[in-house]
Amino acid sequence: MLKVAVVGASGYTGVELLRILVGHPEVEICCVTSRQHEGLPINEVFPSLTGFCELVCESLDVDVIAKRVDLVFTALPHKSAMEVVPGFLAAGCKVIDLSADYRLKDRAVYEQWYQTHSSPGLFAEAVYGLPELNADQLHTTRLIANPGCYPTSIILALAPLIEKQLIDPKSLIADSKSGVSGAGRGVKLGSLYCEANEGFKAYGIASHRHTPEIEQELAGLFNSHIRLSFTPHLLPVNRGILSTCYADLLEEKSTEALLELYLERYEKESFIRIMPAGQLPDIAYVRGTNFCDIGLVSDQQTGRVIVVSAIDNLVKGAAGQAVQNMNIMCDFHEALGLGIVPIFP
Amino acid sequence: MLKVAVVGASGYTGVELLRILVGHPEVEICCVTSRQHEGLPINEVFPSLTGFCELVCESLDVDVIAKRVDLVFTALPHKSAMEVVPGFLAAGCKVIDLSADYRLKDRAVYEQWYQTHSSPGLFAEAVYGLPELNADQLHTTRLIANPGCYPTSIILALAPLIEKQLIDPKSLIADSKSGVSGAGRGVKLGSLYCEANEGFKAYGIASHRHTPEIEQELAGLFNSHIRLSFTPHLLPVNRGILSTCYADLLEEKSTEALLELYLERYEKESFIRIMPAGQLPDIAYVRGTNFCDIGLVSDQQTGRVIVVSAIDNLVKGAAGQAVQNMNIMCDFHEALGLGIVPIFP
Amino acid sequence: MLKVAVVGASGYTGVELLRILVGHPEVEICCVTSRQHEGLPINEVFPSLTGFCELVCESLDVDVIAKRVDLVFTALPHKSAMEVVPGFLAAGCKVIDLSADYRLKDRAVYEQWYQTHSSPGLFAEAVYGLPELNADQLHTTRLIANPGCYPTSIILALAPLIEKQLIDPKSLIADSKSGVSGAGRGVKLGSLYCEANEGFKAYGIASHRHTPEIEQELAGLFNSHIRLSFTPHLLPVNRGILSTCYADLLEEKSTEALLELYLERYEKESFIRIMPAGQLPDIAYVRGTNFCDIGLVSDQQTGRVIVVSAIDNLVKGAAGQAVQNMNIMCDFHEALGLGIVPIFP
Amino acid sequence: MLKVAVVGASGYTGVELLRILVGHPEVEICCVTSRQHEGLPINEVFPSLTGFCELVCESLDVDVIAKRVDLVFTALPHKSAMEVVPGFLAAGCKVIDLSADYRLKDRAVYEQWYQTHSSPGLFAEAVYGLPELNADQLHTTRLIANPGCYPTSIILALAPLIEKQLIDPKSLIADSKSGVSGAGRGVKLGSLYCEANEGFKAYGIASHRHTPEIEQELAGLFNSHIRLSFTPHLLPVNRGILSTCYADLLEEKSTEALLELYLERYEKESFIRIMPAGQLPDIAYVRGTNFCDIGLVSDQQTGRVIVVSAIDNLVKGAAGQAVQNMNIMCDFHEALGLGIVPIFP
Repeated sequence: MLKVAVVGASGYTGVELLRILVGHPEVEICCVTSRQHEGLPINEVFPSLTGFCELVCESLDVDVIAKRVDLVFTALPHKSAMEVVPGFLAAGCKVIDLSADYRLKDRAVYEQWYQTHSSPGLFAEAVYGLPELNADQLHTTRLIANPGCYPTSIILALAPLIEKQLIDPKSLIADSKSGVSGAGRGVKLGSLYCEANEGFKAYGIASHRHTPEIEQELAGLFNSHIRLSFTPHLLPVNRGILSTCYADLLEEKSTEALLELYLERYEKESFIRIMPAGQLPDIAYVRGTNFCDIGLVSDQQTGRVIVVSAIDNLVKGAAGQAVQNMNIMCDFHEALGLGIVPIFP
Repeated sequence: MLKVAVVGASGYTGVELLRILVGHPEVEICCVTSRQHEGLPINEVFPSLTGFCELVCESLDVDVIAKRVDLVFTALPHKSAMEVVPGFLAAGCKVIDLSADYRLKDRAVYEQWYQTHSSPGLFAEAVYGLPELNADQLHTTRLIANPGCYPTSIILALAPLIEKQLIDPKSLIADSKSGVSGAGRGVKLGSLYCEANEGFKAYGIASHRHTPEIEQELAGLFNSHIRLSFTPHLLPVNRGILSTCYADLLEEKSTEALLELYLERYEKESFIRIMPAGQLPDIAYVRGTNFCDIGLVSDQQTGRVIVVSAIDNLVKGAAGQAVQNMNIMCDFHEALGLGIVPIFP
Repeated sequence: MLKVAVVGASGYTGVELLRILVGHPEVEICCVTSRQHEGLPINEVFPSLTGFCELVCESLDVDVIAKRVDLVFTALPHKSAMEVVPGFLAAGCKVIDLSADYRLKDRAVYEQWYQTHSSPGLFAEAVYGLPELNADQLHTTRLIANPGCYPTSIILALAPLIEKQLIDPKSLIADSKSGVSGAGRGVKLGSLYCEANEGFKAYGIASHRHTPEIEQELAGLFNSHIRLSFTPHLLPVNRGILSTCYADLLEEKSTEALLELYLERYEKESFIRIMPAGQLPDIAYVRGTNFCDIGLVSDQQTGRVIVVSAIDNLVKGAAGQAVQNMNIMCDFHEALGLGIVPIFP
Repeated sequence: MLKVAVVGASGYTGVELLRILVGHPEVEICCVTSRQHEGLPINEVFPSLTGFCELVCESLDVDVIAKRVDLVFTALPHKSAMEVVPGFLAAGCKVIDLSADYRLKDRAVYEQWYQTHSSPGLFAEAVYGLPELNADQLHTTRLIANPGCYPTSIILALAPLIEKQLIDPKSLIADSKSGVSGAGRGVKLGSLYCEANEGFKAYGIASHRHTPEIEQELAGLFNSHIRLSFTPHLLPVNRGILSTCYADLLEEKSTEALLELYLERYEKESFIRIMPAGQLPDIAYVRGTNFCDIGLVSDQQTGRVIVVSAIDNLVKGAAGQAVQNMNIMCDFHEALGLGIVPIFP
């Protein structure tokens, strides 16, 4: 059994990791940490876990924890993550970091969008953990940077078109909508029920921190510069991201031809489901699961392709993808422990 | 492998049965029926099921189906169920009926609340499928009447007090609140999004059809007549029932003493979780699972006990309990295939 | 024009007072205060107000404000209110206090449920501002204690039965459900979107601070002690309280006879709407308005009457009732500025 | 007093017309029609209206109604509208038609997207009722085609840029999200609570019937062909449309410069609110009102401008705009009866 720790267990990503890991046949959860709830059983923090995980929350002592586990999930905010990741690696643990701290390859870009980085030396070995793109590298690394939720939905939606150079790289638009859990469990005004419920708004237009991450990965596929407008919106649901992506086709392609391309590209992937022509994804159909559902329409009138992807931001956008990455990293079957059926309605 | 059919698969109870059964290690789903969607793969009706169950919906032909399966789940409206259940039994199938047609023991009561019954001869052998009360009988029957969602939540909340005769049987009040999926997937005005969302109302006060079912089962525990006020409300959530039950204590008992009683009574039950003193259930903590969470307070000021129970109306209130009943009926472990972790948030 | 100040304008009760008062033909809003947003225009705090009220938030300086206004609405938490109310009164202002600080008549009871009170000398002259009960006293006072939201819904539901002594005063149960805005705009975990959405729970069973307030007012009507079980629940909607009240009838009365009694009792009231037999209130039908809708059923089986009332907790449960009180206090027509049509859906 | 009829009063647009008109000082509602609820008081259909409008629903007899009223609001589905509009006009009534039947100027386009038209002779005199564009013509017509909800939000968002020819007319993208009331009150599967709640999806990509309407009006402003990608989405809220519009700037313009342009263009408009730089609209801030809030960002990285507009689809997107049109048509002040303050939260 693989011994793991979940560091930062009292956030929504933390509880989601636990929800998935308690049913994983090759994993033993040995440690959960929470600064705020130290000393409290995790199932008092999340009564949903009663009967499944009743570990007592510990404080985050790298040395103590590293001795007891093989692999650490760091579900901390950026900046907090970089303070502990090097220590866990030095002590011999594998690390899957769910923060943004090791996703960008260019230190200057990181420091422009976030803050000073204390361990940029790790950038070279950190692997961006999007298995549908980078599975090979994930087998051999000790540090995986788990992708952001928005980037996961957008990159998977556009990758087949970009790899085949079918679209104008300067024409990309991603209009994304995320459920409120994407903002985390921190108590802030904008996350209050009455502020989000029955409301809808865009935020961070042309300035969201996920933009460089998306551009880095898409540019890597295209071997060229990418020009992307990314607009996130706050959606009054608990879970789910739907990204509606627009791109100018360089040559005319029918909806059917493009769907064929997607089916081929993702044929071997466990967690990509391509919708047949005439159907489109709904976040309700991936709820609680690691799926990314993709549908598309080629609009002959405008010469554009519109690709829509749906994920659960806490699963394929965070905890589920982290477990998928763990499976690959540890040579388990990629889908082990992730065979969750979507809960509808 | 047990071969099963899900009759009436295109409702919310149907898709929930499929969600659970596709992961059950001893079950093979051989047939799904839907009058409305005959000829359509069930995953076009519910894209959530893509990759898990892609059977084509059949029409409901008892003879044809009975030959191919060992057990039938009838997820039909009352009246429709009684039209096919006798045929399946006659053909040698076991039946778990999720309608109200075989829950009541007294034909006159059934016909007062519903309509004429065409096979009252089966009442004697039908077992009311609440395993926490009737597990013994469930092992040996061929026909299980799966309880209603409201009755499940109320009976489990009150049973320990009634069995011990600690409360006045004429003082019972159950104030219940159910998510909208309890109304089914039929298209009717009251189930529209804009009619239910941001709204809340009581309905069917002192006249809901689940009343005689609750009274029958509670009276059986008490060996006495029961006087219950049951008020259902429509709650703007997809899933969940919370029942707040009130009863006059016949003698003073502390919250702690009563919780002790509940812990003992339900000690061996896989799906009952008793909340510690000071904590109360939330439907969010049982979402997607077969749990019934129970909390209570003894109010010394008024001499009343207030018991609160939470279930997922589609799981413990319908499909999950049906699978639990199937497990018992077929000598599998009671919890097989039901080890789902609640999804929160 | 009556010059008014809204003290504590940046909470949900504050913005609701402003929403109503900007359209009041006899009122000029001269001052809004907010500690947190001092110096900011109130329409930057609440962009909904742009074009209606763009006053700059001030700090709470009693002397400065008292000179500029005739009447003050204190929309502060309890304890904060008592720190400023005596000053406003001493400076000659009328005060409508929306906190709990002047609702209870018995200092010991107040201090048992809240904390030490610094101006209990004002209890004698403070009038409990439920106009349907106390309109006479409201004309002549300078200090109105605006009722709590739950008490408003429960007292209005039960008053006609209690005044006529038709029910057993020891049998009262109020099972209430409130929208999340009832918890205010303070940032706390339980008010987060993901904690409340798709959830439902009871809280504060047999221990909620509104209990003594309800008991005080109902006991006053009955000239006797009252025994009430009050159970509040958190409802995933922005606005609305629905209270389902149970009482044992002392003599048999039909639904029709009881409705007749309610129609007579509330005949002259602008804001009480009695539902015809067979219909029940829904919070959706009072949204944004000062109405209290009431429906009831007499259950001959159990000898109980079940009364259901619906209000908008921010209007009849807070700001609207405060304006109604102001109207009476200042000899305007009781309904002036409150002729808002419910917004449905 | 202007005597009006609301034809098709039992839909969401109908009840919204009544909500607004009951408070209009120059209007007397003389007639409401509903095929489905003929003979029933409208406040039994919508209890929210009790005390405000209790007219009995009539059947739709053009001759009978036309004699009693000066102006008719037809809140019917397309096709049903064209069956009665010519009759009302012939009988001397003014008509404001809320359907799509008289919005398009080109019969061939209408018949391509809808069906055969029976009175295309009226196209020439029908005025497209977007007062911010066409106020002059609205004064003198007897037939106003009230705009669609999506087109209202998109045209108002883009008009200033298009009139000044600042953007590439082939680069337009409108990614719109609408609350469920936009689908009407008809009972259909997709409008059920459990189908829409906690879900989100795009629909009608590159094929929605509002596309030609938007293109017609924008092309009119530009004197050129327009190429628009329009993607509607179903948003789990009762009310509100948010449109996120993308266009390539033909020359570099700062956010501030563009906002200045919008402020000037809409300076005299009662219902357009331009958000200051750094702020963006939220549907929650226009709820229940006739406002269109607009914010924008000029993205120097991509050379695009992103304009976001928010309306209440039932008010500025339907009933409120219809009343605004009535006001202009009848020489009342444009904003009469529409001074509703947004309800937040």
